Amino acid sequence: IGTKFPTMGTTIFTVMSALAAETNAVNLGQGFPDFHCDPKLLADVTAAMAAGHNQYPPMPGVLPLRQAMATKIEALYGHRYDANSEITVTAGATQAIITAVLAIVRPGDEVIVLEPCYDSYVPNIELAGGVVVRVPLTPGTFRPDFAKIGAAITPKTRAIIVNTPHNPSATVWTAEEMRALEELLAPTEVLVISDEVYEHMVFDGVAHASAARYPGLAARSFIVSSFGKTYHVTGWKVGTVAAPAALTAEFRKVHQFNVFTVNTPMQHALASYMADPAPYLELPAFYQRKRDLFAAGLAKTRFKLLPSAGTYFQCVDITAVSDLGEADFCQWLTREIGVAAIPLSAFYGSGFDQRVVRFCFAKKDETLHHALERLAKL
Amino acid sequence: IGTKFPTMGTTIFTVMSALAAETNAVNLGQGFPDFHCDPKLLADVTAAMAAGHNQYPPMPGVLPLRQAMATKIEALYGHRYDANSEITVTAGATQAIITAVLAIVRPGDEVIVLEPCYDSYVPNIELAGGVVVRVPLTPGTFRPDFAKIGAAITPKTRAIIVNTPHNPSATVWTAEEMRALEELLAPTEVLVISDEVYEHMVFDGVAHASAARYPGLAARSFIVSSFGKTYHVTGWKVGTVAAPAALTAEFRKVHQFNVFTVNTPMQHALASYMADPAPYLELPAFYQRKRDLFAAGLAKTRFKLLPSAGTYFQCVDITAVSDLGEADFCQWLTREIGVAAIPLSAFYGSGFDQRVVRFCFAKKDETLHHALERLAKL
Ligand SMILES: CSCCC(=O)C(=O)O
Ligand SMILES: CSCCC(=O)C(=O)O
Repeated sequence: IGTKFPTMGTTIFTVMSALAAETNAVNLGQGFPDFHCDPKLLADVTAAMAAGHNQYPPMPGVLPLRQAMATKIEALYGHRYDANSEITVTAGATQAIITAVLAIVRPGDEVIVLEPCYDSYVPNIELAGGVVVRVPLTPGTFRPDFAKIGAAITPKTRAIIVNTPHNPSATVWTAEEMRALEELLAPTEVLVISDEVYEHMVFDGVAHASAARYPGLAARSFIVSSFGKTYHVTGWKVGTVAAPAALTAEFRKVHQFNVFTVNTPMQHALASYMADPAPYLELPAFYQRKRDLFAAGLAKTRFKLLPSAGTYFQCVDITAVSDLGEADFCQWLTREIGVAAIPLSAFYGSGFDQRVVRFCFAKKDETLHHALERLAKL
Repeated sequence: IGTKFPTMGTTIFTVMSALAAETNAVNLGQGFPDFHCDPKLLADVTAAMAAGHNQYPPMPGVLPLRQAMATKIEALYGHRYDANSEITVTAGATQAIITAVLAIVRPGDEVIVLEPCYDSYVPNIELAGGVVVRVPLTPGTFRPDFAKIGAAITPKTRAIIVNTPHNPSATVWTAEEMRALEELLAPTEVLVISDEVYEHMVFDGVAHASAARYPGLAARSFIVSSFGKTYHVTGWKVGTVAAPAALTAEFRKVHQFNVFTVNTPMQHALASYMADPAPYLELPAFYQRKRDLFAAGLAKTRFKLLPSAGTYFQCVDITAVSDLGEADFCQWLTREIGVAAIPLSAFYGSGFDQRVVRFCFAKKDETLHHALERLAKL
């Protein structure tokens, strides 16, 4: 039938989750919680459905949810978005990112990605006919290298995709780094897609450096958020994009002909649930405790832990544990030890193997203990 | 910021629904029911959430829902799809169609659309870099003209998008027409995107001519279905695509990087709800009664009714009622008479005005009576 994507496979997350299920491994691969969300949130969905909120919502999302997001962003990051013209509800963050890319990237436009990066960015850019410009994060530390980013900017650069807290490395950008990006882009017209889905998972008292905090960035950014990550409902597939009105107008041109709208009862439920900020304010402490529990267990193995400053991921260097390449090691670990992980090479176009794999610690303590028991064998 | 889509506006459905809300008009414009779905379906969602189905489902959708669709398609249309490799759950039919288009259309490929057609098709093709080839349905009758379609096929034709029951004209393709399409495409490699979202709204004892019934079509088709339309929950945004394994594989390559997955609790609820075929088997009679009620009322006006053989739409010729163009008439009707409708010109690239507008009769009887009272003034 003439494939358009001869070399494209299935996303690593699906592959590893399927393998974990097949082998009965503890799945610390794909990032999702194995515990339940707040029952109040479920009750809010039931109430929304009973209230008859089951038909098409307005194309940009239901107004109460857009208002709740605007209120939250202003309270946390100090930037005021207009709920009507600057916030759009999406079918999750992945759909938000592809829609932003399709909305702004014309064939031949260059888009900078910082590697390692989430595995949808590059196919998204290619689908738009854009040219992917890969700039490596600093090997070992995963910090942005602004000399390299600056050197990659050309008159054809349409956008850069940034992501903090960073999947897969679990680093978070500092305020200084965000300001450096702001300054670097100031003389340009480069747009920013800022993937901030782990915004509420930043540890050790550090504040999330949202692009919304930096006026020079906010003015050129699509800021992507995820309710699935924040409220432990990754299967609901609801997110938002906040962007200046002119960018939002472009975004909605594509959004309306991609998903058109997003699940109505979930939107209403999330809007009511957001009235209480406690759930997201408590999230850093909640996940920091899990990070520490998991790290304490891993410290007893020969894995070398990389810092986890944010996200719900913990990366480890496997050098002292195995001679296998990362990808083979993850297969082996799943099949033979019964714990699934994701190789960092899956986040690089070149398949670059630095002997590092990623575990997800968004799991019940008992699941983490169970995984640690198995990993203790190594 | 350099718009990529300088001439693209907001979809007519959003525009007219906003105007209807603003003017307090009876909204017979955008197609959606104003009555409630079966409470059992809502209870099924609540049960799915309580059972913990709130995390990522498998990328192609939850297996019970794919199996339920395969069973239904085989029972109704006699074609057996493999639930694993040939059915994918989508975030509604619009997302299914854009994903199919992005999956198969390469820059420069030609895609045939039959005008009038749903307003996402053309922007979808353009986003993929495809060339839109518009073939008119026969003026007046809206029947496919196979001589014209045949003449439009070139070595660059990648696909044709067909839609029966047809939005906006409310015609349904006959078995002979489907066979004619099958024959016409037999010597070609042209793929088919078959938008069948109104499959359960076919009246007067006629059977839906699904592409699945015709082996030569099934082998080359993406068949798009919509739970929102079938179960009166347009805001849930869940649909499916059935396609041969090779086409499904291409579809999923894009799907995984567009929405990745679709709302988990809704998928489980729909899977349980589908165990009983009664709701969709009763749909033709349910909507035929509404069509007849609405048509009987309209017969007392000076509108000239076009046949409504399927969908939940009724088209009328406005010539005897007004001298205004269709689009202006719909604005006037909404503002001055208090009934919103959609001009057929919105479904043509050229804005072709044939003095016909579309009403949606998926409304409570009382809403239809209310609208008819207002229309009686004309
Ligand atoms: C969208 S599936 C994967 C979830 C995730 O973000 C990750 O595991 O990196
Ligand atoms: C997706 S919004 C419009 C619903 C519909 O299909 C129509 O009114 O034609």
